[in-house]
Amino acid sequence: MISKEQISADYQTIQDEICQSLELLDGKARFEEEIWERDGGGGGRTRVIQNGNILEKGGVNFSAVHGRLPEAVKKAFKVEQDDFFATGVSIVIHPNHPLVPIIHMNIRYFEMPSSFDTDQPLRWFGGGIDLTPHYVYEEDARFFHGNLKDVCDRYNQDFYHRFKAWADDYFFIKHRQETRGIGGIFYDRLTATEDVSWNDIFEFSKSVGRTFAPVYTELVNRHRHETFTEQQQQWQYARRSRYAEFNLVYDAGTKFGLETNGRIESILMSLPPTAKWLYNHTPEAGSEEEKTQSLLIKGINWV
Amino acid sequence: MISKEQISADYQTIQDEICQSLELLDGKARFEEEIWERDGGGGGRTRVIQNGNILEKGGVNFSAVHGRLPEAVKKAFKVEQDDFFATGVSIVIHPNHPLVPIIHMNIRYFEMPSSFDTDQPLRWFGGGIDLTPHYVYEEDARFFHGNLKDVCDRYNQDFYHRFKAWADDYFFIKHRQETRGIGGIFYDRLTATEDVSWNDIFEFSKSVGRTFAPVYTELVNRHRHETFTEQQQQWQYARRSRYAEFNLVYDAGTKFGLETNGRIESILMSLPPTAKWLYNHTPEAGSEEEKTQSLLIKGINWV
Repeated sequence: MISKEQISADYQTIQDEICQSLELLDGKARFEEEIWERDGGGGGRTRVIQNGNILEKGGVNFSAVHGRLPEAVKKAFKVEQDDFFATGVSIVIHPNHPLVPIIHMNIRYFEMPSSFDTDQPLRWFGGGIDLTPHYVYEEDARFFHGNLKDVCDRYNQDFYHRFKAWADDYFFIKHRQETRGIGGIFYDRLTATEDVSWNDIFEFSKSVGRTFAPVYTELVNRHRHETFTEQQQQWQYARRSRYAEFNLVYDAGTKFGLETNGRIESILMSLPPTAKWLYNHTPEAGSEEEKTQSLLIKGINWV
Repeated sequence: MISKEQISADYQTIQDEICQSLELLDGKARFEEEIWERDGGGGGRTRVIQNGNILEKGGVNFSAVHGRLPEAVKKAFKVEQDDFFATGVSIVIHPNHPLVPIIHMNIRYFEMPSSFDTDQPLRWFGGGIDLTPHYVYEEDARFFHGNLKDVCDRYNQDFYHRFKAWADDYFFIKHRQETRGIGGIFYDRLTATEDVSWNDIFEFSKSVGRTFAPVYTELVNRHRHETFTEQQQQWQYARRSRYAEFNLVYDAGTKFGLETNGRIESILMSLPPTAKWLYNHTPEAGSEEEKTQSLLIKGINWV
């Protein structure tokens, strides 16, 4: 069985690889690192990149924390014990260019000591990647989902189908009845079964992590040299406000962080640099903005 | 006993008065009104003012809704019945000028039919006014709190003391350990007692509503003609992002609206026009920004 130390070490390596790729992609900005310790146990490496050629604000965070779960989280997790260990890599990138998408990736592992009725620790993997284009391009959506399907298919034929539907449900802004973007994959509490071993799940988790950089590099390079208008920039700011709504109202990782006394600036690193709430803004009929809005729904099959 | 129709009618009058005062104050922008109906019962008059001389984005909303409470709200309210009636006026103003404060005012009334153990309906008043200066000026804070104290003192000698402390606790961004602004007054589930009649509470509620316009007019006029720097504007945008955090994560009215299928654009009208999340932003030692930050704490006695 893979140890939590091994998982945490491999996740750190993935953080390093991704930061290197993103600096190459940007060509100007460099990550700044802050090492932090958590009251109650563990800590992390927050890495933030800002004001780049293309990366306006992004974070690639690693953490490995342990301690005792607050009551609210125990209830949400439906567990009795309260000692926990959690490690993960979490990324959000806000580009400065409205035709380049926002992206999010997260891989994580959670463990608690064995409970009374078993000598095995309680443990699971979770994670996902999802894309939030300010403007949805169908060929980009097909490329993105196609790559995620390839990663999933390497480990289990059901993964893509299940995790794509899960992402549609998870990255959903209920009060707007719209998806955050074009989805991707999302999975949580993934444990070994007859079909999938712990080792498969761990390898799958790392493959998800390693899919992020090449896929995002391609998407950025497809659009970074296109010109854009002031109107498109305004639409970008409006879309970012929806992103902030999702993260502050619904995102489980954000809630977990706020409730477990996490490092606020690392948790809220995901929030956009400039966002605008325009009152009752409705895109013009027949516009690209309206087309994007019409594609922010669940259940589109992109592959 | 005052009827809900009377309360709702008087609240509408207060909405009219306030809109008139704010148009005079701004001198350029006019309110646009949308009349809406709620699936399930009732509706409202949303009035929004935008891109004025000084009022960048503001809403003065009236609503009177009825129907059945969702389970989550019943639990939060600790009530058994589910028929409800709620009416109120709710205001948030975001000025375009960083030296002019953000302001919020709300007065509301809630009623449910009598429960088994009493023939009286369950009913209460709630409300408050609080100020969120981008830059805290002590003389403005004293003026603001002094006026609120005067209104409170007209009805009950304990009101200001109780409701000021309540505002400090309520308008608190827990994950930042800072108050949203310099507070004000906040009260909820206010019912008649030996000392205060229903009529007193109703009159107090209307006086709170009628304090808003003259007090905000004075605060705007104190600063609207002062020049400001680009750096001060950036600080304004950063402070607005904290305002958005509070409203999306903690504000009970926002949660109630999102959970009772309220009109989204009316509920989220409170969110700022342009906001910025700057990573790990810390004001310079000795700056005005640092002074403001140091005053965003509970328990300051301004009167």
